[in-house]
Amino acid sequence: MVIDPTILNIVQQHNHILCVSHVNPDGDAYGSLLGMGWILRHLGKNPVLAMQDRTPAEFRYLPGSGQIINPGAVVNTYDLIICLDASSADRMGTVFRAEAHANLPLLVIDHHITNTRFGTLNWIAPECVATCQMLVYLAQALGMPLAGPLAECLLTGLVTDTLGFRTSNTTPVVMETALQLMHGGANLPDIVARTLGRRSYRVFQLWGVVLAELHLEEGVIWVTISREQMKRAGTNRDDGQLSSMLITAAEADISATFTEKVDETGQLAVECSFRAKPGYDVGALAFALGGGGHPPASGCTLPGTLAEVSQRVMTALKAAHQQQAAALK
Amino acid sequence: MVIDPTILNIVQQHNHILCVSHVNPDGDAYGSLLGMGWILRHLGKNPVLAMQDRTPAEFRYLPGSGQIINPGAVVNTYDLIICLDASSADRMGTVFRAEAHANLPLLVIDHHITNTRFGTLNWIAPECVATCQMLVYLAQALGMPLAGPLAECLLTGLVTDTLGFRTSNTTPVVMETALQLMHGGANLPDIVARTLGRRSYRVFQLWGVVLAELHLEEGVIWVTISREQMKRAGTNRDDGQLSSMLITAAEADISATFTEKVDETGQLAVECSFRAKPGYDVGALAFALGGGGHPPASGCTLPGTLAEVSQRVMTALKAAHQQQAAALK
Repeated sequence: MVIDPTILNIVQQHNHILCVSHVNPDGDAYGSLLGMGWILRHLGKNPVLAMQDRTPAEFRYLPGSGQIINPGAVVNTYDLIICLDASSADRMGTVFRAEAHANLPLLVIDHHITNTRFGTLNWIAPECVATCQMLVYLAQALGMPLAGPLAECLLTGLVTDTLGFRTSNTTPVVMETALQLMHGGANLPDIVARTLGRRSYRVFQLWGVVLAELHLEEGVIWVTISREQMKRAGTNRDDGQLSSMLITAAEADISATFTEKVDETGQLAVECSFRAKPGYDVGALAFALGGGGHPPASGCTLPGTLAEVSQRVMTALKAAHQQQAAALK
Repeated sequence: MVIDPTILNIVQQHNHILCVSHVNPDGDAYGSLLGMGWILRHLGKNPVLAMQDRTPAEFRYLPGSGQIINPGAVVNTYDLIICLDASSADRMGTVFRAEAHANLPLLVIDHHITNTRFGTLNWIAPECVATCQMLVYLAQALGMPLAGPLAECLLTGLVTDTLGFRTSNTTPVVMETALQLMHGGANLPDIVARTLGRRSYRVFQLWGVVLAELHLEEGVIWVTISREQMKRAGTNRDDGQLSSMLITAAEADISATFTEKVDETGQLAVECSFRAKPGYDVGALAFALGGGGHPPASGCTLPGTLAEVSQRVMTALKAAHQQQAAALK
């Protein structure tokens, strides 16, 4: 992949750089944020890495994760902000302060096709399976070896965004990239075990509770997860794992989970997580509902009760399914 | 990998060859059986492929699967029998007729460390993640390109035996092998979708029923699956998928599922499926109980009721766990 020289220049010409990724961070958010940190340090710069959310246990093995600061420690003055893996400005959360940071140059590096190009310079590559894959090319263009901590961070994003090489966009190029990082010392089985293979057994208890009411309607498989059910199972998170699981149902083209939560203002809200089989697209619908993601995996959070939101969204999902199924014929 | 010339010779010197794999066949059984067929055809031979079980829907996409014959169509006279991916003679099921076939040369090609070396010539390579990986080296040694139907079959075994590159033995060599097969035209996302990503939604209904009684005891996570529960969910198979899922529980080192069944003689029996985290070994216990497998994944079938077998095996599993945990300290 040839990278626009203006991207390389802006990175090389600045020194006091704030790096940020997105809220509800996943493996690609942490992998690309920390990977960017290692690239900038290799260039002799002193990057500041910030994230709105606290780093969850499963990502604390990542080299450099201890240096991620919270929004309170972010200052107003930097030379440059680099935003990684976030499809829109609001996804940066409270790390980005509109008043203080709006006049700074902002480089957006992202692989989401739904990216709103909110930077002063935007490098958007939807052909990459992960923002970490873009950083592999960036490191190569900057002459940095794909080894050590950098390799570990970048392979993490590659593994989590492809669900361990299971998504339909896992081409030979992706496998070659993974192999390069493994040759550089990144431990694939270790990364898989830490990210994909590590659930609390309470998540299985939760599945036992919610799968008792599994729905399959017109090619869409779905469940709701109430706060009461989470309480009964002793867990407060599923993290879209169940929708990734349900999409493996042979009878379904689209999967959805609706998880009840209370938002920052104390109002009831529902976290919607969608997955689609190859040929189907749940990215556009999530985007239309104010969320984000990719054609095969997306999500959004909507105000309302579980019954009300799931009913409304299911109507939209079934309509989208019908239209897409017809187009595939 | 250097292959003993006697292996290459015996394959090249015979023409009327019966190829067989194991009962309860998985992706590596089908991949290696069919892959061997393509290798032998490339050498100008006319192989006969036989399997005790009917080919399940998820493996019928494999090129050549329509030519697999059942035990009734197997004759008594061949020049050579090649047995693939079976760790002991009984795993060939009724395809192998002791009286008629015992005097024929038998080449065993297998990657199970528990292989009993029951052939007249045995090529056992526990360092390979799948028997299909061994056939990659065999094809190369015989000058056959890793392309077309052969590549498709061999990548299938590689994918299923590593659970999609998730097992701890997924080294860079394994990834390189997969990449070679992809370059030869094998479609990874397609294989993943057909084998790992294709469950009946009734399996999820079954999980909803059985996970309501999930146990976690001394590092072992386990469930029982009764015939009544399977009937209620409208499915009669789980295929060890649940034990592969449960081993991802952070709190567990070993997982087990106990599935009630009725054996050929009408007696109650229990199918036991075990998985272990890196450092733990469930292969030896399954072997001791008359089953087979690998340190991280194994199984056996025992006569008795669900309560009686699960209690007896759980005692053994917990003892094995305690011993192994102590050794790891």
